[in-house]
Amino acid sequence: MTRNTFAKELEELHLDLINMGSLVEDSINNSLSALRNEDLELAALVIKADDIVDDYERKIEKKCLNLIARQQPLAGDLRKISTALKMITDMERIADHSSDIAKLTIKMAQENMIKTWIKPLIDIPEMAEQAKKMVKTSLDSYVKQDINMAQSLYEHDNIVDGLFIKIVQELSLIMKEHPNAVDQAVNLIFIAKYLERMADHATNIGEWVIYNVTGRHKANKENKKFLF
Amino acid sequence: MTRNTFAKELEELHLDLINMGSLVEDSINNSLSALRNEDLELAALVIKADDIVDDYERKIEKKCLNLIARQQPLAGDLRKISTALKMITDMERIADHSSDIAKLTIKMAQENMIKTWIKPLIDIPEMAEQAKKMVKTSLDSYVKQDINMAQSLYEHDNIVDGLFIKIVQELSLIMKEHPNAVDQAVNLIFIAKYLERMADHATNIGEWVIYNVTGRHKANKENKKFLF
Repeated sequence: MTRNTFAKELEELHLDLINMGSLVEDSINNSLSALRNEDLELAALVIKADDIVDDYERKIEKKCLNLIARQQPLAGDLRKISTALKMITDMERIADHSSDIAKLTIKMAQENMIKTWIKPLIDIPEMAEQAKKMVKTSLDSYVKQDINMAQSLYEHDNIVDGLFIKIVQELSLIMKEHPNAVDQAVNLIFIAKYLERMADHATNIGEWVIYNVTGRHKANKENKKFLF
Repeated sequence: MTRNTFAKELEELHLDLINMGSLVEDSINNSLSALRNEDLELAALVIKADDIVDDYERKIEKKCLNLIARQQPLAGDLRKISTALKMITDMERIADHSSDIAKLTIKMAQENMIKTWIKPLIDIPEMAEQAKKMVKTSLDSYVKQDINMAQSLYEHDNIVDGLFIKIVQELSLIMKEHPNAVDQAVNLIFIAKYLERMADHATNIGEWVIYNVTGRHKANKENKKFLF
């Protein structure tokens, strides 16, 4: 394989990541829209589409390992490929959580919980919006190799964490006052948790982008505050 | 590097994985014992030790990529190394969840929740015991390269999932009947969720062992039942 073919294969890898990223973004958009509109067909689609994301992960992973083995890449290229290897793990987890939310949507519909929202989904739509934005930003930061964009995710993650804590507190209060809202509230707590995890994975993706550009890892995960 | 050196490096990698695995097992044992005995020092230790596991992950990852790049391994060895790469991600997540449980233990102690356990931790000790066993089995299946052992994790995971659903239902019932138990119950729900995820990661490790031995991936993740 010539260096030229190698460059081309790296470019292909980059495109694979972008395609996988756009599937992951779709999964979030669809899962949230399925939840909001009680659209069970769309929810089923999200669960099904998760398999495609899994296949993408495996395909990209294989490509990366083969590239490394065949091409013995130098430091910069090796970093590029190992960034891809790590990013896809976080991307796959985000799509998994979209699927988790879709499954909960179906479960809540089956148990007739959706029609009787405790209050208009509390701050969950806001939190979902923020988590969605973070995933988009993280993928954009990869496409543009933009460290500032990637770095902005830390601050953004704090906002999502704050919303998460607020939602759990609000739902706890509702459960204390309205025992018949408990089942619904418990489901919403899990949905909030999945959104919080999505934001974490977006932050991780940003860290991989920073690593790719600078060659430096963050010292160690900051010890995040108590988040349930 | 001669083939001999390569064999030696593979052996070292194997030992690294075993060492990391034993740290991960410690993290579970300690986090559960900290929860049970309200031992906040031990909980703090678990949180601290998570950094060491993170460092292990990074170190092994680097070793794997360098091995692939320098040695251009053949199919079987490449599979061995890529198995290591995937396993450490699941192992690191298990230790993360130990740390999550330790953080919740400290939070609950600060809020004076532990002294007044709703009921003796419901089925959580049982679930914790099962999750612990699964992690141990998954790591043993790697050490022994034992497919049957790895395969047994699927069935075991179903048991843990069943316990998880039961615990959430029990806690929901308690919240309906005792509004003043809500905060504590919400914390316990999260602990149960972390244990359920640990069991998932153990199952994943088993899948990697099966892949390593047979060269075959499972077709696709079965669509797990609705689990919250």
